[in-house]
Amino acid sequence: MCGVFGLVAHEPVNQLLYDGLQVLQHRGQDAAGIVTLENNRFHIHKDKGMVREVFRTRNMRNLLGNAGIAHVRYPTSGDAKSSAEAQPFYAGSPFGIVFAHNGNLTNTAQLHDTVYRQYLRHVNTQSDSEVFLNVFAHELRQQVSHSDTPFHLKIDDIFHAVAQVQAQVRGAYAVVAMIAGYGLLAFRDPNGIRPLALGKAEQNGKTAYAVASENVVFSTLSFEFLRDIAPGEAVFVTLDGQLHTRQCAPNARLMPCLFEYVYFARPDAVLDGVAVHQARADMGVALAEKVKQSMDISEIDVVMPIPDTSRPIAMELAHHLGKPYREGLIKNRYIGRTFIMPGQATRKKSVRQKLNPIPSEFEGKNVLLVDDSIVRGTTSREIVEMVRASGAKKIFFASAAPEVRYPNVYGIDMPTREELIANGRTAEEIAREISADICIFQNLDDLERVVRQLNPAIEGFDNSCFSGCYLTGDIDDQYLLALAQSKKSA
Amino acid sequence: MCGVFGLVAHEPVNQLLYDGLQVLQHRGQDAAGIVTLENNRFHIHKDKGMVREVFRTRNMRNLLGNAGIAHVRYPTSGDAKSSAEAQPFYAGSPFGIVFAHNGNLTNTAQLHDTVYRQYLRHVNTQSDSEVFLNVFAHELRQQVSHSDTPFHLKIDDIFHAVAQVQAQVRGAYAVVAMIAGYGLLAFRDPNGIRPLALGKAEQNGKTAYAVASENVVFSTLSFEFLRDIAPGEAVFVTLDGQLHTRQCAPNARLMPCLFEYVYFARPDAVLDGVAVHQARADMGVALAEKVKQSMDISEIDVVMPIPDTSRPIAMELAHHLGKPYREGLIKNRYIGRTFIMPGQATRKKSVRQKLNPIPSEFEGKNVLLVDDSIVRGTTSREIVEMVRASGAKKIFFASAAPEVRYPNVYGIDMPTREELIANGRTAEEIAREISADICIFQNLDDLERVVRQLNPAIEGFDNSCFSGCYLTGDIDDQYLLALAQSKKSA
Amino acid sequence: MCGVFGLVAHEPVNQLLYDGLQVLQHRGQDAAGIVTLENNRFHIHKDKGMVREVFRTRNMRNLLGNAGIAHVRYPTSGDAKSSAEAQPFYAGSPFGIVFAHNGNLTNTAQLHDTVYRQYLRHVNTQSDSEVFLNVFAHELRQQVSHSDTPFHLKIDDIFHAVAQVQAQVRGAYAVVAMIAGYGLLAFRDPNGIRPLALGKAEQNGKTAYAVASENVVFSTLSFEFLRDIAPGEAVFVTLDGQLHTRQCAPNARLMPCLFEYVYFARPDAVLDGVAVHQARADMGVALAEKVKQSMDISEIDVVMPIPDTSRPIAMELAHHLGKPYREGLIKNRYIGRTFIMPGQATRKKSVRQKLNPIPSEFEGKNVLLVDDSIVRGTTSREIVEMVRASGAKKIFFASAAPEVRYPNVYGIDMPTREELIANGRTAEEIAREISADICIFQNLDDLERVVRQLNPAIEGFDNSCFSGCYLTGDIDDQYLLALAQSKKSA
Amino acid sequence: MCGVFGLVAHEPVNQLLYDGLQVLQHRGQDAAGIVTLENNRFHIHKDKGMVREVFRTRNMRNLLGNAGIAHVRYPTSGDAKSSAEAQPFYAGSPFGIVFAHNGNLTNTAQLHDTVYRQYLRHVNTQSDSEVFLNVFAHELRQQVSHSDTPFHLKIDDIFHAVAQVQAQVRGAYAVVAMIAGYGLLAFRDPNGIRPLALGKAEQNGKTAYAVASENVVFSTLSFEFLRDIAPGEAVFVTLDGQLHTRQCAPNARLMPCLFEYVYFARPDAVLDGVAVHQARADMGVALAEKVKQSMDISEIDVVMPIPDTSRPIAMELAHHLGKPYREGLIKNRYIGRTFIMPGQATRKKSVRQKLNPIPSEFEGKNVLLVDDSIVRGTTSREIVEMVRASGAKKIFFASAAPEVRYPNVYGIDMPTREELIANGRTAEEIAREISADICIFQNLDDLERVVRQLNPAIEGFDNSCFSGCYLTGDIDDQYLLALAQSKKSA
Repeated sequence: MCGVFGLVAHEPVNQLLYDGLQVLQHRGQDAAGIVTLENNRFHIHKDKGMVREVFRTRNMRNLLGNAGIAHVRYPTSGDAKSSAEAQPFYAGSPFGIVFAHNGNLTNTAQLHDTVYRQYLRHVNTQSDSEVFLNVFAHELRQQVSHSDTPFHLKIDDIFHAVAQVQAQVRGAYAVVAMIAGYGLLAFRDPNGIRPLALGKAEQNGKTAYAVASENVVFSTLSFEFLRDIAPGEAVFVTLDGQLHTRQCAPNARLMPCLFEYVYFARPDAVLDGVAVHQARADMGVALAEKVKQSMDISEIDVVMPIPDTSRPIAMELAHHLGKPYREGLIKNRYIGRTFIMPGQATRKKSVRQKLNPIPSEFEGKNVLLVDDSIVRGTTSREIVEMVRASGAKKIFFASAAPEVRYPNVYGIDMPTREELIANGRTAEEIAREISADICIFQNLDDLERVVRQLNPAIEGFDNSCFSGCYLTGDIDDQYLLALAQSKKSA
Repeated sequence: MCGVFGLVAHEPVNQLLYDGLQVLQHRGQDAAGIVTLENNRFHIHKDKGMVREVFRTRNMRNLLGNAGIAHVRYPTSGDAKSSAEAQPFYAGSPFGIVFAHNGNLTNTAQLHDTVYRQYLRHVNTQSDSEVFLNVFAHELRQQVSHSDTPFHLKIDDIFHAVAQVQAQVRGAYAVVAMIAGYGLLAFRDPNGIRPLALGKAEQNGKTAYAVASENVVFSTLSFEFLRDIAPGEAVFVTLDGQLHTRQCAPNARLMPCLFEYVYFARPDAVLDGVAVHQARADMGVALAEKVKQSMDISEIDVVMPIPDTSRPIAMELAHHLGKPYREGLIKNRYIGRTFIMPGQATRKKSVRQKLNPIPSEFEGKNVLLVDDSIVRGTTSREIVEMVRASGAKKIFFASAAPEVRYPNVYGIDMPTREELIANGRTAEEIAREISADICIFQNLDDLERVVRQLNPAIEGFDNSCFSGCYLTGDIDDQYLLALAQSKKSA
Repeated sequence: MCGVFGLVAHEPVNQLLYDGLQVLQHRGQDAAGIVTLENNRFHIHKDKGMVREVFRTRNMRNLLGNAGIAHVRYPTSGDAKSSAEAQPFYAGSPFGIVFAHNGNLTNTAQLHDTVYRQYLRHVNTQSDSEVFLNVFAHELRQQVSHSDTPFHLKIDDIFHAVAQVQAQVRGAYAVVAMIAGYGLLAFRDPNGIRPLALGKAEQNGKTAYAVASENVVFSTLSFEFLRDIAPGEAVFVTLDGQLHTRQCAPNARLMPCLFEYVYFARPDAVLDGVAVHQARADMGVALAEKVKQSMDISEIDVVMPIPDTSRPIAMELAHHLGKPYREGLIKNRYIGRTFIMPGQATRKKSVRQKLNPIPSEFEGKNVLLVDDSIVRGTTSREIVEMVRASGAKKIFFASAAPEVRYPNVYGIDMPTREELIANGRTAEEIAREISADICIFQNLDDLERVVRQLNPAIEGFDNSCFSGCYLTGDIDDQYLLALAQSKKSA
Repeated sequence: MCGVFGLVAHEPVNQLLYDGLQVLQHRGQDAAGIVTLENNRFHIHKDKGMVREVFRTRNMRNLLGNAGIAHVRYPTSGDAKSSAEAQPFYAGSPFGIVFAHNGNLTNTAQLHDTVYRQYLRHVNTQSDSEVFLNVFAHELRQQVSHSDTPFHLKIDDIFHAVAQVQAQVRGAYAVVAMIAGYGLLAFRDPNGIRPLALGKAEQNGKTAYAVASENVVFSTLSFEFLRDIAPGEAVFVTLDGQLHTRQCAPNARLMPCLFEYVYFARPDAVLDGVAVHQARADMGVALAEKVKQSMDISEIDVVMPIPDTSRPIAMELAHHLGKPYREGLIKNRYIGRTFIMPGQATRKKSVRQKLNPIPSEFEGKNVLLVDDSIVRGTTSREIVEMVRASGAKKIFFASAAPEVRYPNVYGIDMPTREELIANGRTAEEIAREISADICIFQNLDDLERVVRQLNPAIEGFDNSCFSGCYLTGDIDDQYLLALAQSKKSA
């Protein structure tokens, strides 16, 4: 997963972009980048690492200008080891374009070939974003190639180019880009899988516009949240602050990613009309019903979250069951590296590095642990074992998400199918695997119902991890096999 | 505040020391240092910054040896700007000693003079720790100066030196030190103001011993928590793993710092027999009683913590009042710097950088906000204003700690008296200052009672911030005035 | 001035490129860059600083591949402060091109406008090299745009593009470039102002080809020097090692820069058929004749070079005059920075930092000092004063170059006309300015004769600094005025 | 070899110390360090690397104060890999002392034992300097231990301590040290093996005093050279600028190291009354005589130095033989690293990286190459082979130093005896080994005579490398064997 942020302001934007990236840091901690535009010249700094590590005073001082885009990356494709893979990317022709996106393209290989062999454009990394940028650059060049005044780019040219791009690329994407001399562009895939929000602020009597992956960026920076950008919609803000919007995709529909609500987005965000905090609370209620159906709840002494995401879920679940809610697992905020020492065996980092139990909360009790989801199951098992060693009698484990059985191809880094604990296992088998007495999963229907209740305009969801149904219609066994191979060799 | 950690093991200790410092990182984020001992030679690395920033692979590779001490610093005295002030400190005579402590000496100026003029020892920093080390080094040298075999240091010599040191230095301290060729020393001030715990682990058929500021270090590193080191007690572990202990102070008594329980220690720690998590829950109960006496609780719609420390306090308080507990303030985990740009005004970092409200939790409600304490009051006011802007009707503010009216001289970095909002103000006046409708403080008696109930062996507390009574008996107005001056000029 | 180097080999080239840059380091100490090509992907590292500072092991490990180009920069245009201005530059369309050059274009402003407005290409720096690259990229794109198989670039396309470029750009240039998937390109301006040499080596049974600013790179790296690349000629080496050459300019003529022979090139280089060491020795002979005509040589006690360049000049001059040759000025090899300390006056770095006199060599003697040239005259004056303070009686000063009266626009960083000491002054006036008793300059005719004798095929020289005649025919007072303005504001 | 510098001034000294180290950089390029004293507090910065690499602006800004010492290191003992071994060293007791020296102690092992077991002082590195410092610190402590006013250190105490130290330590040393609160101390071993000079400057109406390894530091920094410090003499400059001197050794005699004159010192230095430049010129005359005796000089076409040191030697030699002097080997000023690449064979760095021949100077000629000395002979052989490949007919090789047959134990890093080419070989055999036609060495008598003629007060020399006679009388076969072992294992 990644986070994007961009704005056209009427004052220097480097600190705003930096602060915005901090708010989005949870969406990607692998690399970060900022580009600003000053007098038709881009200033760029990007590198591997967290935002606070990547940007030093000397870097910030170079990031001059009143407009810019920024990106935090959680690797989903490309060579994560290389700092050259950090976004945004730059293309010098036409006009000068910088580009960053959240999401993942599913036809990157074919696009790469077209870009290289037909468009004669070089892609110097393994990043789908650089391919994406070059498809856009090519289409923008095509738009103006027969114009009488190709140098004078028109807003229509930009939106036409976006439409051409959307027709070619498949997958999930929320894009921010800047065209030198013109302005800030943002657009979203026709299914609206990845979120993108629009905000504004008054500055020195003028209006500044911003786009961001989550609307929490706006409140933190004293911007006003205007609305979500619609699936398939493109937004262009000129350098003097004029806002233009256009629906560029013919069959757009709102099908957001369910995982954003389950665990990815910040709790204080409102994505596509759904308050994430409320959605999670409601998941707790629905999960309580499932728990009631699945076991004798009189056995439960206490309900406990595995922090931090599942806290509101567990709180509502406990309340709905009429059981005490307790916090007995303390999250370690500061987790360091394991250094490889010559001639020494590397100590395995256990779950103990991340969570520490308060034994008095567990001793002699039957505990219902609540997590947002179970993916590989290895951490879940370590937690169950640690809780049991702390004195718990029976341990029940409830997941706010259904069984994760399929890989994600739309921008969330997931293990291969073989590594998913729910792949080919029933809830009983999973309970056995993670050493829990009972294991309970939310129903997919319930999860979707809960979220859609908060915004009935949502037409459906990307629920592919649970259902195996991929919205872009181009994911077959061969694709997933190739994906698994590439992950193994990485 | 600071954190200390030391151990004598039977395998390389660099990764263990690093991991232990991570667990203690909340006790000091300003600087960090590790010293290891290998074949009678110290390897040292220390610098400003957080643990993960200070230690790189190249540093860790140099930190060879099976014994070592480590320190994280929160500046309380000395020149915080200089990396030379980071602990541990080294003295080459006698024997070679490295030394680190948590706490603060209150007679540093006089000790510095004695060290320099009488002991002819040079102190190259403004750190009280370097003075402390030199007092110890001098006393150790004195112990052996009339010995027939001065080079063969005896355990008794060490404990006698500690006793001499304890007679000279005043203040709060929990010390870890190593003597080259001999072993690990740890000792605690006669009032036991700062915590220090002893643990052990079996390694390769031998016993490794460790001391740490908080016992959570032990569980995280798979060590067993043995007991707290007693006030005035010294512990010495020889390099081959023999444990020696001695009470070195004539009038030791257990008077721990109240603030450790209120907000400083980790919730999963058990300090001097008191489980911090439980103490905080009990503070919530006591505070509920105070709230009942102070206002019409029917006005309260919802109880809400200011995360993270006050969460268990607010939870129990809500339960005791029979009011809903909600979490409507989301803590930003990633907070960056404000860069100073030439020619740009620096944007003020507001509380928004730290906390973000979920408006739906506040709209139209009367909210009881719960915090662990109120010091300057500036953040409290910003929070109240933010909550009000989010739609809250009435805002009540409860503090689990009594009014903070006096500076701390025992190792907690506090503003000067003039900057303390409770200095010369009643609760009503404080409420007005922070824009709250009502402001309620825990009674000091209640707070002490709650903690002591969990360990009746506690004889009293360092409660000087609330009461103005300083246990070391050497703090007068002149001292506090000089302290305030030095803070202003820093 | 700058230095360029490029090669297509049959083994990894990173160390070779690094070693070659070290040999060319005297041509530019301001910035350095290397690009390698591996499987159609460029690896690039460039930064400000000297070669040994710019490249660390971690950078070198990324520079994989068997072909590459490299550059050292001495700033002549652009924003010297920015590391983004370091060469080589990259363009992604068409094919992927990296590009570096030695020299300077004289119609950059007009080319920049064409590139931006007509070719719709973005130039993100103030470097003429990035403009140059984009002119080439545009022409290459044009060559293939009507081809049936645009993706299959033909050698002819490349040479045609070079011809188009040479028709558009004016100035002095020696270019190395790589086209991803195809190979290494090098070409030289039609006047051959900047040098460029071709070499080869046998590796694993195949031939590796290299181009470099000076042929000394070849001997140092165990390559064989084949020949100079001709003015206007282009060379293309395919990735499998096939060499293609083509004369691309209609009216090419060999008019090399005189300054290369006077002081810029290494003494062991042979440039355009002229051994630099021999040329300098011969300059000494010619200068001896001028000295004889200009003064009573019986007054001269000793001849002394100002090291290092003028050493062979002075040696031959002394021999020809029958005077003792002595070395009394010792060059400091290690010269550090002057640090700016808050609140301290910065000490002026005098010539003492660079040269130290041996007083016994000067006491009571009449000394003829020999330098390669006199530009501003400030250093010359400092040397004369230092030599006089060391006890010299009379001081005569001879310059192997004629009076420098005009700026250089072909790649040598020169002060503005006003700053040149010879601007509007006679030799007598210059002698007075630099406090010398007599000042003698080589005649321009003699200098040209001496160099041309070593290669009669040289048709003329870029001697603009001395004569004010600019070969490209586009330099007028307005151009020079603008140049002076830009230097002042920089 | 190393270089030392120290001064007490009346203005900030950081830039002066830095500039002085640059002048001494040729004496040690392995590590560098500066300590300044400000208000009784030392500021220290030291690290591995050359001066320009070790000191950045941020380091320099911390080096406050008007007095300081500095050091450049060429490793002779200790663990060269560790930056902790860089000088100066610090001891906190008594008073606070920083200490650096040039030279090498020959009884380090025994001293280390005394320091550790009897003086109870810890030495944390393998550096003889840290042992040396602790011997001095102990003796200084002893001087004041029975004083009525131990804190008020008297000049006599210091000089008595130096005398005690000189009685204990053996070897060669030139020491600079500072005592906090008191001033700058410098002293030299009783044989005067290593050089040390005294200078002064007027600053703001007061006198600043400085000591440095070579007097060239003074002229470069606009100080006046007063005199050499005598063998066994100690100099103390109080912080207010009073100069005190004392002869502290009973049997001092001037026996300087011959190698300083042959190649180590700068040519512009005057050491112990001998102008190095003149000494080298005179060595050329003496060597010319030896050449005449050794071969038929009519065979010699040209005399050529191997730059840089032997240039004046070769020049005088050529003049004395009446043969042309030519410079045909060009020294590469910029030499980079050889990077170790995974999976690649490391290219051997040949002499080509250091020297490049001008073939025209060699073709068809009989060449007499002149070098300062021949140690291992490997470089000599490579040069001879390169010169022969450049076309030379016969190659004669003359060394300004006699055959090097014994290791150096007084501070010059030399290979073991087995690695010395002259060990057990005649000049004829050496000629064969290095592929030269004839090989000629200066006679030791001639070399000593030449130097002593320039200062008859010199009583003798440390000529141990040539003669095997060690002045300190404590070097036997066992010592040399241990030295060879330690070098092998390093």
